[in-house]
Amino acid sequence: MNDFTFQNPTKVLFGRNQLEHLPEELKNFGTRVLMVYGGGSIKRNGLYDKLMGLMTGAGLTVFELPGVEPNPRHTTVNKGVAICRENDVEVILAVGGGSTIDCAKGIAATTLSSSDNVWDLVEHKVSYTEALPIVTVVTIAATGSEMDTGAVISNMDLNIKSGIGSPICRPKVTFEDPELTFTVPAYQTACGSFDIMSHIFDVAYFSNQPQMDMLERIQEEVLKTVVKYAPVAIAEPDNYEARANLMWASSWALNDFLYCGVRQMTACHAMEHELSAYYDITHGLGLAILTPRWLAYILDENTAPKIRQFGVRVMGIEATDDVMSDARKAIDALADFCFKTLGLESHLSSLGIGEENFEKMAQAACRGGELYSFKNLKKEDIVNIYRMCL
Amino acid sequence: MNDFTFQNPTKVLFGRNQLEHLPEELKNFGTRVLMVYGGGSIKRNGLYDKLMGLMTGAGLTVFELPGVEPNPRHTTVNKGVAICRENDVEVILAVGGGSTIDCAKGIAATTLSSSDNVWDLVEHKVSYTEALPIVTVVTIAATGSEMDTGAVISNMDLNIKSGIGSPICRPKVTFEDPELTFTVPAYQTACGSFDIMSHIFDVAYFSNQPQMDMLERIQEEVLKTVVKYAPVAIAEPDNYEARANLMWASSWALNDFLYCGVRQMTACHAMEHELSAYYDITHGLGLAILTPRWLAYILDENTAPKIRQFGVRVMGIEATDDVMSDARKAIDALADFCFKTLGLESHLSSLGIGEENFEKMAQAACRGGELYSFKNLKKEDIVNIYRMCL
Repeated sequence: MNDFTFQNPTKVLFGRNQLEHLPEELKNFGTRVLMVYGGGSIKRNGLYDKLMGLMTGAGLTVFELPGVEPNPRHTTVNKGVAICRENDVEVILAVGGGSTIDCAKGIAATTLSSSDNVWDLVEHKVSYTEALPIVTVVTIAATGSEMDTGAVISNMDLNIKSGIGSPICRPKVTFEDPELTFTVPAYQTACGSFDIMSHIFDVAYFSNQPQMDMLERIQEEVLKTVVKYAPVAIAEPDNYEARANLMWASSWALNDFLYCGVRQMTACHAMEHELSAYYDITHGLGLAILTPRWLAYILDENTAPKIRQFGVRVMGIEATDDVMSDARKAIDALADFCFKTLGLESHLSSLGIGEENFEKMAQAACRGGELYSFKNLKKEDIVNIYRMCL
Repeated sequence: MNDFTFQNPTKVLFGRNQLEHLPEELKNFGTRVLMVYGGGSIKRNGLYDKLMGLMTGAGLTVFELPGVEPNPRHTTVNKGVAICRENDVEVILAVGGGSTIDCAKGIAATTLSSSDNVWDLVEHKVSYTEALPIVTVVTIAATGSEMDTGAVISNMDLNIKSGIGSPICRPKVTFEDPELTFTVPAYQTACGSFDIMSHIFDVAYFSNQPQMDMLERIQEEVLKTVVKYAPVAIAEPDNYEARANLMWASSWALNDFLYCGVRQMTACHAMEHELSAYYDITHGLGLAILTPRWLAYILDENTAPKIRQFGVRVMGIEATDDVMSDARKAIDALADFCFKTLGLESHLSSLGIGEENFEKMAQAACRGGELYSFKNLKKEDIVNIYRMCL
């Protein structure tokens, strides 16, 4: 069990009647706000008007950066930086999911750096030691970016999905109203739900590292929460209980608590980032396609006991004396959950993806060496796993 | 499910090699330190010398308030206030368990108030809106005061155990080194372990309120952590895994996360505070004596399902179709855990406590009205429960 430091000061206002507090929370940081948001769903569902009404009614001056992409582009971040600098923005309001919040983090850090290009920060050419304060209004349960320090940014010119990470990027205040996710379509609900699971799998759970027993058990409970409530939210989009459990699960899957004392690994995330960088697919979908194949590929006598434990404790399979067989059943149960219960596409070929870039993607995922993981992966291993996903 | 706000900014440095960072953490707040500690065990086990060496070696000026009692007295808090004011203390270092940390909270808030008597704050005669920063070094897994906002203070002149509570009292930085608890005797380990369980029982778990399913499951995992590791720590005092799990469990049993959205109740804590106020018994022991009797007293068709759930999910009893019988088995299993596994005294009479003050104590516990709880308790109910404990 390793030593660790834990601190997560994000203030979360959770529930149906919290948004009215948005103006007072923003005013703690200033009156000049940059509102960052995505493709326009918040205009269709009325959230945009509600937030603008609240803010302008409270005398706040609001600038806007609309159109943040899923897998947010560095060029979009840079647009936000220019707006902040030209208008002396004091606080950034991110309204959306992980992409929008990550974009806001890039803007917040770059604006107070010496560069006007977030990619300089990604490439460590420019240091960042302070950031504009960020307030978020979460509209999908998925990435957990709302209580986390990291931001993933895509550079499509270079086919690189990389990022920045620092406590200075952690949102100061986060609003989580489960009702705001009632309008999230089934497909996005499914992708977001698997993203939650993948954070736990990838960063802590599927590992040979010594873990604190209590935290491992809590990881399993958060996984079970997703297994239980994702299908409910898909079948009944306005089920408050399901949406609330998924929303709070998403924040706690990536806010440092579940990983205390564990050296973070990110096997499937590293492989998926290449898929997104080359083909711009939805992050949660890429993770769902990769994870069962990854587990099948690394299954051996060392990894089987933990995979079996997952099957027994989370997926409800019956334990037998045959550890390897139980582990296979666990992987099958996970694949069934992804591709039948959640209804996600199971093959890359169905998304129009062939093996043309696998060598380059694998090289990037392991950075020319080994991808540290439950079982370390070389470039050839990663190519093999990509092929299993075809 | 109720709306809630969650924020817990305490920085925790957890593990074997963290104490070396104490001087730098203190220096973030100042160089004039009041070290608050208890009855001298830290002098016997070398911790006092280690801490003093670290602090004086780093150029810090250290004042001392030794002798904080279990159930800390308001008079002791007031001594600390005088030291802080006379010496321009900038930061308080609490070394110990809940009593010491609570005493530090009283000192921190009173010093920056307009009074020199913490009891004025307890009685709301004087407001408190700021406090000196508090750093803690935890030496027993029990109260969770190290990440919490509350402080329980005893006034033995009035036989009142009451307290203060505010985010300003929450420790800024907490050191948790499980090895520091290797020397905690079996009896104190048992009392502290039950205190952890009681926070979950009393504030959230035993309740008819609608809860978030994920949080209820995590409450059960933390309870199971204590049931599993408390006997290990008693049998093997230097078992790091057991001590670490108990220590992290104690912090998370009372740092607001497990209670998100639940209206806090404190039936057994309210009854126990009167026991401590009149007889100065160990808090965790009083809770262990009271809790199984309280559950037996309130057992009816409304409360039985949750009590049974506790038995099945936490204590491992087998579920049958007879809910009431299962609930009784759950209570028996809890009593066995307290009085056999943990080895705690099971009767107040064995502690020399008779029923002479039960009427007054019950009156105080319900403040002359009803004690809001899983099943509300009137004065007569509380007297009956005390009698069951004789």
